[in-house]
Amino acid sequence: MQGQTLFFNKPVSVTAVATIAGPKEGEGPLKDYFDYILKDDILKQKSFEHAEIEMQRRVVKQLLNKAKITESETDAVFAGDLLDEIIGCNFAMREFEIPFFGLYNACATFGEALILGASMLQSGLMQKAVCTTTSHFATAERQYRFPLELGNQRSPLAQWTVTGAGACLLSAEGKRGIKITAATVGKVVDYGVSDANDMGAVMLPATLDTLDAHFRDTGRKPDYYDMIVTGDLGHAGGRLLLSMVKGKGYNLDENYTDCGILVYNREAQGVGQGGSGAGCSSLVFCAYLYKLMERGLKRKILLIPTGALLSKTSSLQGETIPAIAHAVSLEVI
Amino acid sequence: MQGQTLFFNKPVSVTAVATIAGPKEGEGPLKDYFDYILKDDILKQKSFEHAEIEMQRRVVKQLLNKAKITESETDAVFAGDLLDEIIGCNFAMREFEIPFFGLYNACATFGEALILGASMLQSGLMQKAVCTTTSHFATAERQYRFPLELGNQRSPLAQWTVTGAGACLLSAEGKRGIKITAATVGKVVDYGVSDANDMGAVMLPATLDTLDAHFRDTGRKPDYYDMIVTGDLGHAGGRLLLSMVKGKGYNLDENYTDCGILVYNREAQGVGQGGSGAGCSSLVFCAYLYKLMERGLKRKILLIPTGALLSKTSSLQGETIPAIAHAVSLEVI
Repeated sequence: MQGQTLFFNKPVSVTAVATIAGPKEGEGPLKDYFDYILKDDILKQKSFEHAEIEMQRRVVKQLLNKAKITESETDAVFAGDLLDEIIGCNFAMREFEIPFFGLYNACATFGEALILGASMLQSGLMQKAVCTTTSHFATAERQYRFPLELGNQRSPLAQWTVTGAGACLLSAEGKRGIKITAATVGKVVDYGVSDANDMGAVMLPATLDTLDAHFRDTGRKPDYYDMIVTGDLGHAGGRLLLSMVKGKGYNLDENYTDCGILVYNREAQGVGQGGSGAGCSSLVFCAYLYKLMERGLKRKILLIPTGALLSKTSSLQGETIPAIAHAVSLEVI
Repeated sequence: MQGQTLFFNKPVSVTAVATIAGPKEGEGPLKDYFDYILKDDILKQKSFEHAEIEMQRRVVKQLLNKAKITESETDAVFAGDLLDEIIGCNFAMREFEIPFFGLYNACATFGEALILGASMLQSGLMQKAVCTTTSHFATAERQYRFPLELGNQRSPLAQWTVTGAGACLLSAEGKRGIKITAATVGKVVDYGVSDANDMGAVMLPATLDTLDAHFRDTGRKPDYYDMIVTGDLGHAGGRLLLSMVKGKGYNLDENYTDCGILVYNREAQGVGQGGSGAGCSSLVFCAYLYKLMERGLKRKILLIPTGALLSKTSSLQGETIPAIAHAVSLEVI
């Protein structure tokens, strides 16, 4: 490990992806990239939580089908979601005969899953691993803020939790393709922000910390990447980031965007500062960024899922909100 | 990967341990093995959740001190706890400048941490990793069942969540010592038990599944191990396990015990079926089992932390309780 950064000298391939988008996400700018768009967000289940579980189950099933591999050929699933005790993936995984690692780094969980999956393949201990996360607007609002039924007014800095799931298959095989070549593991950073409706400001210091570490450890400059994509600072947080990195001596104006910005049409869709949620970066990566790389339109992407590590208990107890961000370097080789 | 089992051909060393036990745990049979026994379970904090966070912070600090390593020499912390959104370790980790992976497999999280930490070291990507979990009786009761202030009667099959924290340091160095040589990664197993007061019965099928996989994948028989220690089936669950493995053609009568059985004196301490909690297996391993191996009293231990993957939401929505168990093979080499 160089500082906080892991270099995968046997680069790990991302060989297949699967996505399920909610109805609102399916009306957004990425609509043509999703495998499947839900007609509603309850999926004939008896609760939104069950709908999220069902979404998680379906996306893993779909990935295995698309990749044409069986459960017994899959060494492990690395998964997480935003529900208390990550019941989204816990309950989905009882339908699969696959060894399971449950993860929680909030909306940075997809980055955590990619890093742990890639490390496991690099070690030679595993050959194929699934990385997946999910989130659901209704379950996240109920859990972290207020149930939708209350009809609360939304705060101007609020983001919109993505209803959706993304899953990808990592494989130790293949010389060429879309590879995870390096990753910078985030530390927990808390700058004292306590507004659970302003996730961009909460997650910004952790993002800066990880970006700094990534450039320091790799010796790379921002222009090494065709795209640097956080997930999910949203519009306000993204603007803050662009301004604050200049104070650190570098410039992301040319190649920066954010999963929460990409996933919705902000003006038309009434989503506040943009998307968020553990499913946001997995959905945007698996649906859109992966295909940009597959088609040769982008060759080097730095994906930085960012997570706010609050709970409703910590917020009600008056705590500030720590955050974390993991950077994953993806390159077409 | 052979079936569900990883073989570490560059065995990973457990080179240091640290433990903090709650007051009740400090009156139990393992009292002489703990580094530190708390005088009370609130630690001068304003809530039990803050006390759990403080316990997690102290145990990591203590481990780094005992191992005489700095934060910058520590490649990563793999940690989890039972609080919603694992705020125990999230908030503790903001005090450390160490890359962090948040994990959640309920009371099996310590097994998950050991497996991921050991795999990371085996890959050569990291040299030193901390694995730690914590739990607290008062926070767990409030979250999963009822706040203590209600004074509810306890169910006959209930277990007692351990107040305590254990942490160990994994190192890629050293030819001899206490090594992680293999590990069997659990699948999520749900046999339809829905009683949140009977964790032993909930976690038994997952334990059997992982034990079966471990013996099948390794070709070992139960007598390969000096001790086979689940965490935490408790007294009732442990008895059920001993009886049910016989139906599968093997016998654990001679070398089986459970972290939840070891940690309390059941008759004197009024703990129902024994201990449980994410901190139970880490506390018992780091305090007791590690020292048995260090002193040469036991040379081969199979540690099987077991976890019930419920949340209060899933229980209130009438769901059954899935479970998972990971087996970690520890040998003195």
